[in-house]
Amino acid sequence: MSATEKVLARIETNFDKHQQRWLDWLRIPSISAQPQHAADCRAAAEYARTQLAEIGFTAEVRETAGHPVVLAQHPGPGGAAPHLLYYGHYDVQPADPLELWKSPPFEPHIVDGPHGKRVYARGAVDDKGQSATWLGAFRAWYEETGGLPCRITALLEGEEETGSINFKPFVIANKRELAADVAIITDTGMWDIDTPAISTSLRGMVYVQVDLKAANRDLHSGMYGGSALNPINALTHALGQLKDERGRIQVPRFYEGVKDISTRQANQWASLGFDERKFLGDIGLSEPYGEKERGGLERLWARPTADINGIWGGYSGPGTKTVIAAQAGAKVSFRLVPGQDPKQVAEGFKQFMRARVPADAKLEFTVFGEGAGLEIPTDSRFMQAAATALADEYGRPAVMIGCGGSIPVVETLHHELGLDCVLLGFGLDDDQVHSPNEKFEVTCFRHGLRSHARLLGKLGGDR
Amino acid sequence: MSATEKVLARIETNFDKHQQRWLDWLRIPSISAQPQHAADCRAAAEYARTQLAEIGFTAEVRETAGHPVVLAQHPGPGGAAPHLLYYGHYDVQPADPLELWKSPPFEPHIVDGPHGKRVYARGAVDDKGQSATWLGAFRAWYEETGGLPCRITALLEGEEETGSINFKPFVIANKRELAADVAIITDTGMWDIDTPAISTSLRGMVYVQVDLKAANRDLHSGMYGGSALNPINALTHALGQLKDERGRIQVPRFYEGVKDISTRQANQWASLGFDERKFLGDIGLSEPYGEKERGGLERLWARPTADINGIWGGYSGPGTKTVIAAQAGAKVSFRLVPGQDPKQVAEGFKQFMRARVPADAKLEFTVFGEGAGLEIPTDSRFMQAAATALADEYGRPAVMIGCGGSIPVVETLHHELGLDCVLLGFGLDDDQVHSPNEKFEVTCFRHGLRSHARLLGKLGGDR
Repeated sequence: MSATEKVLARIETNFDKHQQRWLDWLRIPSISAQPQHAADCRAAAEYARTQLAEIGFTAEVRETAGHPVVLAQHPGPGGAAPHLLYYGHYDVQPADPLELWKSPPFEPHIVDGPHGKRVYARGAVDDKGQSATWLGAFRAWYEETGGLPCRITALLEGEEETGSINFKPFVIANKRELAADVAIITDTGMWDIDTPAISTSLRGMVYVQVDLKAANRDLHSGMYGGSALNPINALTHALGQLKDERGRIQVPRFYEGVKDISTRQANQWASLGFDERKFLGDIGLSEPYGEKERGGLERLWARPTADINGIWGGYSGPGTKTVIAAQAGAKVSFRLVPGQDPKQVAEGFKQFMRARVPADAKLEFTVFGEGAGLEIPTDSRFMQAAATALADEYGRPAVMIGCGGSIPVVETLHHELGLDCVLLGFGLDDDQVHSPNEKFEVTCFRHGLRSHARLLGKLGGDR
Repeated sequence: MSATEKVLARIETNFDKHQQRWLDWLRIPSISAQPQHAADCRAAAEYARTQLAEIGFTAEVRETAGHPVVLAQHPGPGGAAPHLLYYGHYDVQPADPLELWKSPPFEPHIVDGPHGKRVYARGAVDDKGQSATWLGAFRAWYEETGGLPCRITALLEGEEETGSINFKPFVIANKRELAADVAIITDTGMWDIDTPAISTSLRGMVYVQVDLKAANRDLHSGMYGGSALNPINALTHALGQLKDERGRIQVPRFYEGVKDISTRQANQWASLGFDERKFLGDIGLSEPYGEKERGGLERLWARPTADINGIWGGYSGPGTKTVIAAQAGAKVSFRLVPGQDPKQVAEGFKQFMRARVPADAKLEFTVFGEGAGLEIPTDSRFMQAAATALADEYGRPAVMIGCGGSIPVVETLHHELGLDCVLLGFGLDDDQVHSPNEKFEVTCFRHGLRSHARLLGKLGGDR
């Protein structure tokens, strides 16, 4: 029996405890966007630090200008074993609208589903649940062997959901401590519940808040209507032009650098048999809304987007209020593909807005985060080891997929530390990430934990 | 000394008490739009009823399907004295955004201003303050003479700020009790603080809430962006087309029935010397935003509008949330001019929206109120008496103006009871009606009270 097999057996024996540690972490409402949860963010960081310290890591909670970073080191066995940097994040998205949750978002709720037990909670999967898979794999190796088969740096940040603004400076300031051979990140999804996947491309993101101010006070729409600038009319007039009738985004120079996918890529994605009608049908929609002349996976993985994530202004209570508001605002995000320059997109959006509002409309922009899209080479030994570990665990090959989401840290780790990233993740499309009733299947958690245990053995030279 | 002169002297003697009754009424937060204030609305109605009962009226609080109506009758002296119906409303607009108030909205705050004392409170002018002017005039006549010089019906509703939905059925159901010779309404403004005015036209209104529903839950903008319908994008895309670049409203058949103003009217309004740059400068704006090819007063009094009064959807908290919301909504109101059919405008707006959203966008419309625009003949004996009363009080002629606001009840009283309406009001443009820090000048309140006392004397045959 190989060491890996013994570790896998130990995971099964201790599985309830692994699950318990994951659930305890979920109880901490570490919402990074909301200042009133700053102490909770720190508590979630401390929780992870303690986990790592318990299994032989030198583990610290390190300060940044925002929420802290957890940084932990384990020397591994020495010798030829590679040095792996695991990245995760302990922060979560805001839970609102709270009234749509079937159970409180920070009281993990276990229910029976079509694939066995599942856990409902904010962060169940993104990214506490996923991070708990590799934390658990470390622990299983430590419990079985008293050490770890590779040298490991574990790094968990607390601002992934707010654009990782302070993470990049932290990485730059600590380059030497963060040196490694490869980065391993578990914040992505499977192809389906039976088919493991490695993500080989990520979309980047630019997230901008725009505030539009008009009169110096709210106005009566009867006394001023027809003469006074209405900021909501002006804001919708501008934002309503973000896309043309074919779904093409109208921000100046937006498509500069965007490349069509290769025939090889198109063929590979076609072979996955993606059913966009079913994908949309599952969420109550019947037809795609993006660029009309593109394929389903292409729209999701290889084309940039412009989504208004929030809008506000004037009266939204019951009944009527005949007011012309003094101001209105919106949050707009752009998912970017490799080749697009995030700074140019942010600048282009400002130009787009300025060109479409009247002179009296005072515009203010807040850029919350910028990250470029990224493609990851598939031929490294780490990628191959991850693919084999997943294939061994699931009994079928891992598929190479794109990811529509943005993990700006992948770009940071790549550019600042020179690391390639292996993105293996265990989420499903219906996990309701960022939505009410976020969940993670317990079977996905278990396979994730076991897959990471296998990967550690494989990279550590275990046969 | 005429009876009117004695009444005017008594007003001065008892002025503090008149003011106190007005302030006490303002302390009741009778916000008709918000269900949690239903009991306050009833309390404000009861307050008015008591006032009227104290001065010889047979006064009742009468039920409707919504907030109640106050109906009170005084027989007057009999003989040839006319029968006047006074209309007012005891309900007020919501007070939010509360943080912009310099003093609590329902704790009347008296401060020194450029025109003497002024009172800050929600409803200070609209319409408790204005209604208190004629309630005070009744009281002064009663105190001085033991009766009233005309037969009077007093009618105060509690849903003017939410579209008077239940007022019209009430009027229709009580036509006989509401018979009168003329309606007198004080809910409009002066030309400026020295120049009294009678309003001879009102804009009507259609107020519609539109809700747009897309996916059956909130979505992650990375996983779904580019494929899933974004309801905020779709809503802004449609609403952003409400007006073309010249400010023309694009709702189908919207301008049917809209007439250009006559040369006589244009000349009369030109003679008022309206300074639109100053009007807008006072609220921090520099240029008009409505139809480009129209004059200043024409845009405010004789042209229809389309204003978005509120919009909401997705995340509006601090920082970022990369969500594609499940739904979004907006409140949109149209001010109408005589000749436009409110029902056709409401229907046209629905068509406008349906034609501009994708098939998956489920639209729901709630029409909160519809009222046509109205013109009032200026040659009746009641209009002439009102003009004389104002001229006597202010020492200069009253000007005949338009009103950009909507008082749907004017149309109801006109069509259901066959009454012409005399609209004399004492508000100023800077009263911040419907805004934070609504105020009423005490001098306007005093002149209003005195003007109503004069009008009662004049119509009652006092010399």
